[in-house]
Parts: sequence; structure tokens; C-alpha cells
Amino acid sequence: MRSTVGWQVEDGSSTLRRVPLERRDLRPDDLAVRVDYCGVCHTDVHAIRARAGEGGGPLVPGHEFTGVVTETGAAVTRFRVGDPVAVGNIVDSCGECAMCRAGQENFCHAFPTLTYDGIDRHDGSTTLGGYSREYVVRDRFAHALPAGLDPAAAAPLLCAGITVWEPLHALGVGAGSRVAVVGLGGLGHLAVKIAVALGADTTVVSRSPDKAEDARRLGAHGLIVSTDPEQMAGARDRFDVVIDTISVPHDLGPYLRLVAMDGTLSQLGHLGPVTVETTDLLVGRKKLTSAGSGGTPATTSLLAFCAEHHITADIELLPSTRVNEALTRLHHNDVRYRFVLDMSDLD
Amino acid sequence: MRSTVGWQVEDGSSTLRRVPLERRDLRPDDLAVRVDYCGVCHTDVHAIRARAGEGGGPLVPGHEFTGVVTETGAAVTRFRVGDPVAVGNIVDSCGECAMCRAGQENFCHAFPTLTYDGIDRHDGSTTLGGYSREYVVRDRFAHALPAGLDPAAAAPLLCAGITVWEPLHALGVGAGSRVAVVGLGGLGHLAVKIAVALGADTTVVSRSPDKAEDARRLGAHGLIVSTDPEQMAGARDRFDVVIDTISVPHDLGPYLRLVAMDGTLSQLGHLGPVTVETTDLLVGRKKLTSAGSGGTPATTSLLAFCAEHHITADIELLPSTRVNEALTRLHHNDVRYRFVLDMSDLD
Repeated sequence: MRSTVGWQVEDGSSTLRRVPLERRDLRPDDLAVRVDYCGVCHTDVHAIRARAGEGGGPLVPGHEFTGVVTETGAAVTRFRVGDPVAVGNIVDSCGECAMCRAGQENFCHAFPTLTYDGIDRHDGSTTLGGYSREYVVRDRFAHALPAGLDPAAAAPLLCAGITVWEPLHALGVGAGSRVAVVGLGGLGHLAVKIAVALGADTTVVSRSPDKAEDARRLGAHGLIVSTDPEQMAGARDRFDVVIDTISVPHDLGPYLRLVAMDGTLSQLGHLGPVTVETTDLLVGRKKLTSAGSGGTPATTSLLAFCAEHHITADIELLPSTRVNEALTRLHHNDVRYRFVLDMSDLD
Repeated sequence: MRSTVGWQVEDGSSTLRRVPLERRDLRPDDLAVRVDYCGVCHTDVHAIRARAGEGGGPLVPGHEFTGVVTETGAAVTRFRVGDPVAVGNIVDSCGECAMCRAGQENFCHAFPTLTYDGIDRHDGSTTLGGYSREYVVRDRFAHALPAGLDPAAAAPLLCAGITVWEPLHALGVGAGSRVAVVGLGGLGHLAVKIAVALGADTTVVSRSPDKAEDARRLGAHGLIVSTDPEQMAGARDRFDVVIDTISVPHDLGPYLRLVAMDGTLSQLGHLGPVTVETTDLLVGRKKLTSAGSGGTPATTSLLAFCAEHHITADIELLPSTRVNEALTRLHHNDVRYRFVLDMSDLD
């Protein structure tokens, strides 16, 4: 086994502590990656709180990170030592089902192996995430980080970025599309940047009128205050695509009413059951969908697109020793717009 | 006022009785229509039972009927006395909102005037439906009945037909599309006929294996028994479009799992709140939508398509004196596949 260090929760606590960790010896198709930067995702907050509540085993979060290849398995041909790479929230899949064959490993019928708290398909061990100084990953699930992308600010592209890219791409957003992004956080600010770069006429919908300046800076044409019934009524049926990034359960009705006839609302911000009034779909034949993560071909496309359009996340970079502060502030949505941990302090 | 007769519920009863009815004198853009055939819709059952429960005023159901023009208002140019016509579940709308301007009067922002139990936009009276011998309707909401369509079997096209036509059309169903129709009743059997005529590879999903023969007779390539987990698992991710016509609240999960990646489930059979697991949408980026009724241009297109492809409903034609029997049997789904009332016995 290989030795490294990382940030872990254990013993029913929700506070992460620096601990020694083991990584597997390299299989023929594995890479060892020195993790330089790891984004802090809402999923991490949920997972840590759930684990603390249920008193389960140790957990090392982190599923959007960038770094440098330090060693390659005998069969690896796509990467060499020193290559900058990026890893998202999936590190393996069955490779044989229709979804895997279509390049949508995130929908693998046998369930993809998650980057942390997943079950390794070969040795049955629990995966430990990117809040650590080293990660060992199957080469197919590492992505070359294109030149020109800042590795710290690019880390959130691997989860937040691909999660908004997939629906924007699948729903055909392009020049002339009318897109609303509900919620201007980690997902939302990247949705705005990408939609704008795709040529869409993009509007932010937010509870906070004080985000109007940021919305414009990100390229949006305006901001609708969601708590203002007059503004919401004035935007009825206006958007071909509504990307809803609100991270807590909420009534979808007001946002479905913003969708144009035959348009779509993609709800990305949280999992769990969602209830809609049939009439909110029926009137205007509106569609409700969701998305999360992405397949390897889409991730490659996203990274190329972001390099071409100079898109990365707006981040607050913290030394990894401040991981607990980042998680607490994220829980209160106190970040513009994504925390990224600098792992170099783990050396 | 004009005098006619019809079938009405009143005084908290759910039994319809033959009563004299009044119709308005013709406005310049009105037609008087002798109603010959009126279909019996699930909506009628719901409306009658709801009215009986709440003890409200009288109700004359019926919103899919065919007949003959007997008189025209002074400004009417599209129709002449003797013309065969068809009327659906909408008889007026604001005409000015974006939906009306787009020819989707069924989604009128000011709410369309329903054919029965609606509020007339001019005199504020409550509309009385097609379970009667005469109807007075604004010319814009009457449709010429194409030659070659049997007027009795064509009546259900005006509600059941347009309700399945709109989503099939909006979702781009055509040659090569893979369509599943869940539930083989009034809506479902027309969805099968229309999908087949559009060129789709069409499959029926039903609790009843004994409907397999009917499914094939209607043009479907097969039937999946929804209570057989093995058959349902074997059809996972197989259909671009799933048309769900089940008329009672039900779990959409099993039917969403039949939808192919980026495909759509259109839930048509009942109104009210519906709860879905976000993961049932997320995995495969599947879409949930609904539809109901249709606009006047789509209704015209549907009637032309049905005339070209010789499509009408499979009906059980009853004299209108047997209306109560028809409603009771429909409530128990005991009809293959639509009751139509012959109104000539009202003379």
C-alpha cells in the first residue's frame, strides 16, 4: 500500500481531522495523482452531516480535484508523469451496460464507483476522496487538464461544472436560447458563465437583489428577484430552459411558470422526492428533468470548451487546514462562489 | 333564448335526468349545432361525482361531440347550414395572450372557456355541455368534420384524440420513434393508433395480459405486462416517449425507468399533484411532462391526419337514455374503448 495524508471525519463527529491514509498499489491501468486543489461541494456537507448522524465509519470527502501525475501503471499510455490532470466524482463503472457504452458512465446500470464513500469494483474497499494529498485512479477516469486553465479554479469544473454542462448541452442551449439560472451559487455561477459562452440570453433568478451586479459581471442580462411576485409574473413563460440550482427542497411551481411552452426546467440542486402540480406541467407542455455529474466524453468536451472560453469557477482558495471553516460557511451559503482547498499544506 | 333538451345532474344526485335546457340566441359569430354524438370522458365521471359531493348547482357534461350546423350568426363565413362539425372541450378564450396568439387556446392565460361548467366570457352564464340535442358555439371553436370520418366514432377525437396527439406531435414522434403507451383505455387506444400511423414502433404497457390481442390489432408491436417485474426490467431505458394514460394517481417510477436517455414521459391520465424521485429523472436525464386538450390549429391538423389514416375511436354506441349506465361502467373501466351517446333519442 501507499501512504498519504488527508482530512477525515470519524467517530460520529462532523469535524474533519488530519490523518494518515493508505492508497492501493497501482494496478496496470492506474495513475497516482498528487492532489493540489480540491473543491468543496454541497454533497460533501450533506455526506459529512449524514455520516455524523448515523455514526458510520470514517469518511474522506472530495470529488472535484486537480493535480499532477506522479506515477503510472504498466498499461497506461494516455498519461505521463508530470501531466496535469483532473478527477471528478466517478472513478470507475461497469463499462459494459448501455449507459457505459454510450459514454454516460454516471448512469451506469451497475452504479458507478464514486470517488469517495464508493465501493471499489476490484477489492471491495471504500473509496477515500480528494481531501488528501494523493489519489490513485483508473486512467479512464482521469482527464487531461487543458493548458490555460488555472488548476485551482478549474477543480470545481469536475463536479459543479459538468453538472450544469450536461443539461445545457442535452437541452440544446445555444445562440438565441433564453436561459434562466435559479440560484447564484457554486452551480449557478458556472451555469451562467457556460450558458453565456454558449450564446444564450441568460438571466439570473435569485432571492438576493444584491447579486444583480455579480450576475451582470458573469455575463447575465439581468436578475429577477424571486421574492417579487410582480417580477416573477412579468417573466412568465419566458425561458426555453430554466436551470434550478437551489440546494434545498422547494416549491418548483414558481420556477415552472417561468418556462416557455415546450421548454424545460432542470432541477440540479438537490436529490430526493419532488412534488409538482400536473397543471404546472400541462399548461404549456412544460418538462421537468434533472441531471448530475456527467460521462467521460462530456467531461472532456466541457474542459475543452472552458479552455477555449476562459471559463473557470470564481473561487475562494483556502489552505486545507481551514477545511472545517469552509464546510461551515458553505452550509450557510457564505461563499462566492466555490471554496477550493490548497492541499500543499499537507506535505 | 333557444330551447333544447339534455342530460343533467342536480340536487346533489349523481344520476343524470332528461331536462329541458336553454341555449343563448345566436351572436354574430355563433353557430347552432344539432348534437348527434357525444363521447363520454373520464372527466365527466369526475365532474359528476365532485358535483354530487359538494351539492352545487346543475351540471350538463359532455365535451367531445359531433353534429350538424342548423343555423349561423350574421358574421359567420366558415360554416353553412348542413355542415358536419365537431366541438371539443374549449369554446372560447381571451384571444389576446401569448398562448392564444400561438394557437394554444387551451393554455390561455386568462383561462379558456370550458365547454361545460365554464363561464361564458360575455354574459357570465355557466356553460352546459354536449349531453344535449343542441349546442351554440362560437365559430372559431367549431371544427369542420372531414369527409370519411364516421361522426359517432370521430367524436372522441375531440378530447381523447387531441390530448394524445399534442404530446406525440410536440415530442416529435415519427418514423423510428420508440413509443410506449401505458394503459389501454379511451386515451391509450387512440395513442396507439396515432403513434402507429406516425410511424412509431409502438408498445402497450398494461396490467392486463389479455389486452395483448387488442394491442396487436391496434398496430402495436407487443404488450408489456406492468405487473411482471422481469418484463418491466427487460424494457428498461427502451422508449423515447412514454405516454402514460392511467386515470388514477400512481407511482411514476416504474414507467420513468422505461424511458430512454433524454426521453420523455408524458402523464396525461389524471390531474393533481405528482411526486417523483429526482434520481428517476436524473439517471438518464429523463423528462416528465403532461398535456391536455389542444389548440384549434392542432385540432384541425389532428382531424386531417385521422381522415388521411382512417383513424377513429373504437366505440360502444349507446342511446343517450343509457347515459347513466355508460358512466357507471366507465367508472369501472368497463368499456372498449370509448362510450359515445347517440343523441337522436332526445328528439
